[in-house]
Amino acid sequence: MSESLLTPLALESGSKIVLLVLDGLGDLPHPEHRNQTPLEAARTPNLDRIAPQAAQGRLTPVSPGITPGSGPGHLGLFGYDPLTFTVGRGVLEALGAGIPLQPGDVAARANFCTVDGSGVVTDRRAGRIPSETCAKLVARLAQDASRFEDVEVVLQAGKGHRFVAVLRGPGLGGEVSDADPHKEGKPIPEARAVVEGPGNEKTARIVNAFVAKAHEVLGAESPANAAMARGLSARPRFPGYRELYRLRAAAIAAYPMYRGVAELAGMDRFVPDGEGATEAIATAKAHWNDFDYFFLHVKGTDMAGEDGNFDAKVAVIEAVDAALPDLLALAPDVLCITGDHSTPVLMKGHSWHPVPVFVHGRMCFADGFPRFHEKAARGGSLGTLASRDLIAVLLANAGRLDKYGA
Amino acid sequence: MSESLLTPLALESGSKIVLLVLDGLGDLPHPEHRNQTPLEAARTPNLDRIAPQAAQGRLTPVSPGITPGSGPGHLGLFGYDPLTFTVGRGVLEALGAGIPLQPGDVAARANFCTVDGSGVVTDRRAGRIPSETCAKLVARLAQDASRFEDVEVVLQAGKGHRFVAVLRGPGLGGEVSDADPHKEGKPIPEARAVVEGPGNEKTARIVNAFVAKAHEVLGAESPANAAMARGLSARPRFPGYRELYRLRAAAIAAYPMYRGVAELAGMDRFVPDGEGATEAIATAKAHWNDFDYFFLHVKGTDMAGEDGNFDAKVAVIEAVDAALPDLLALAPDVLCITGDHSTPVLMKGHSWHPVPVFVHGRMCFADGFPRFHEKAARGGSLGTLASRDLIAVLLANAGRLDKYGA
Repeated sequence: MSESLLTPLALESGSKIVLLVLDGLGDLPHPEHRNQTPLEAARTPNLDRIAPQAAQGRLTPVSPGITPGSGPGHLGLFGYDPLTFTVGRGVLEALGAGIPLQPGDVAARANFCTVDGSGVVTDRRAGRIPSETCAKLVARLAQDASRFEDVEVVLQAGKGHRFVAVLRGPGLGGEVSDADPHKEGKPIPEARAVVEGPGNEKTARIVNAFVAKAHEVLGAESPANAAMARGLSARPRFPGYRELYRLRAAAIAAYPMYRGVAELAGMDRFVPDGEGATEAIATAKAHWNDFDYFFLHVKGTDMAGEDGNFDAKVAVIEAVDAALPDLLALAPDVLCITGDHSTPVLMKGHSWHPVPVFVHGRMCFADGFPRFHEKAARGGSLGTLASRDLIAVLLANAGRLDKYGA
Repeated sequence: MSESLLTPLALESGSKIVLLVLDGLGDLPHPEHRNQTPLEAARTPNLDRIAPQAAQGRLTPVSPGITPGSGPGHLGLFGYDPLTFTVGRGVLEALGAGIPLQPGDVAARANFCTVDGSGVVTDRRAGRIPSETCAKLVARLAQDASRFEDVEVVLQAGKGHRFVAVLRGPGLGGEVSDADPHKEGKPIPEARAVVEGPGNEKTARIVNAFVAKAHEVLGAESPANAAMARGLSARPRFPGYRELYRLRAAAIAAYPMYRGVAELAGMDRFVPDGEGATEAIATAKAHWNDFDYFFLHVKGTDMAGEDGNFDAKVAVIEAVDAALPDLLALAPDVLCITGDHSTPVLMKGHSWHPVPVFVHGRMCFADGFPRFHEKAARGGSLGTLASRDLIAVLLANAGRLDKYGA
């Protein structure tokens, strides 16, 4: 919705926007850490120096109370309503595996399993085979089960029994049911078109042929003597940043999933030399003149939250703070620091809590707050926004949005 | 909208949610009471004890600036967008009168009036007859004007000239115009189907037959020699809490209207032994193991607000606080305290002001505030939410919502 409002208002400008995402940044006051959040407990002298001149607020990634996955979390930050712009499970898995998806591709989450003599699934995880075995078996399939009709099946091994399958060929549809019984004691069902049409029927046919061929190829293996596929979905076609906002956008992320989601928004992708903010900022510096908008992704905060490790989360935040002068030296017109969702240490997982957001720019409304953290952000001038509205605030602060109406 | 998002995410869990509604809780700073609100002025030691661990915020019942009636106010709290899930006036009147409505029932607000020899209404309130007269006349109609075709007309006397009529029978429609001229000096118009169709036409026919028969039965009475009906509406069919959220929900309210609205959400209804929080909590305790969600309604705050009685509103709040330990002893996983709307003492009526909301649970974001009231709630971590989004926050805090997207 916001994009149709913003597009006719978008202005060209020489200004530059940096969106620095600390994955899973938002947290809860921790009773064993003086009721502070990691962001509050961290020593952040560089951030503190610019905090009084920044505007603070909070972002609601999807809708109040909703805990987002990484896909919806980032799509929201990029300005796409995650309830409208949905990405299938297979596509997200392929993006996470770093498989570049082309328009028309259909992706699936796949895995090895064990079936008995009558085709009934007896172990959905094939005895949890090690990843090395998975890689070997995927190589076998790549040799003997990678082409059906005019469709290529691109395979990539994952962890344990998991792999990704991407169907690439003309006229494929993405609305196809799982070739996966979802429980043991049943045979692998045939994939079916869930919406009628030759594209979906073709995809179902190819998936069924792949599953049959995989069983034929792997039949003598034990325990991984078959394969199944689920979450079939077509790479979506979203309008990109250039056409929506006249922005040349760069995505800098060490993990393929985030580059992949950014690519759906039409961003150019870059792999930094390491996982930290230092490396991401160095990459931004190297391409500073070629882009108007830089999405920098730091994964460590989310990982520390998932691990329930307060000190580790603090350490990642402090490392980002240490790198901040390099970023400020580039003099972005607008610097935004936020997260795609909260990953509270206490919860060891994603959560629904609003995410603190920090916007620094000449006209941002300087809140005058001495520090940036969840508690300060409650009272910030940005208020509590839907994540999908952030892009408008960033464009406005960058002088890139014209007046609406006369 | 929220319900279609939440339903596929709803998880079973052993956790319990209590929604304690102090009707009309929200208020304004009162210049004659040190510019405090009643909630601020009340002594609430038990609430204060748990306040620092709770999250605060505010609820907008319908939309900013909109003053809700009790129906929309509660539907919002229950998660139903009051602009989409509407309840007709007749249905609300019947629920308020405690008439259990069955699917297919059509209800109307009715009243006695005076008509002259040519059928023109000369007094819409029949000289404001006393309630006892109304009861007697309703009994007459119940005897002589309670069956038309295959439709039963269930009648219940109200205050003064008012009564409720419920049409019960096969194939009735709810979209029918009023058999009420809305002013004096005009005859009672015939009810008409406002949307074509046999159901609405049947209802119109029955209503017109009832009005004619009532005049025939009452013709010799004075001043109440006729009756009219308005606000005709069918009992709506809303998806219930069990199918929407996998919640077994109980509604505990001394007043029938609130039990009635809760019943539209599929809640089981219980009448406590008294109007206070103590009795409501005792009822919750008696059924604690049978439900996942408890809606407890306390009416006194609204009544004191309507009366413009600051001290009375304070006293009701203090009585709720005194009962709070009994509720906390049940150890609900999530305790929410809020109102369905504001009823400021200064206004002696419902108002549009956001309503303070208090959510207590292990993962709620402990705001660290020493007390709960309108002023503190402005800066709380829940922010300002639409009432209809509250259910998502409660489910999330109860661990009853899965992640959205991967």
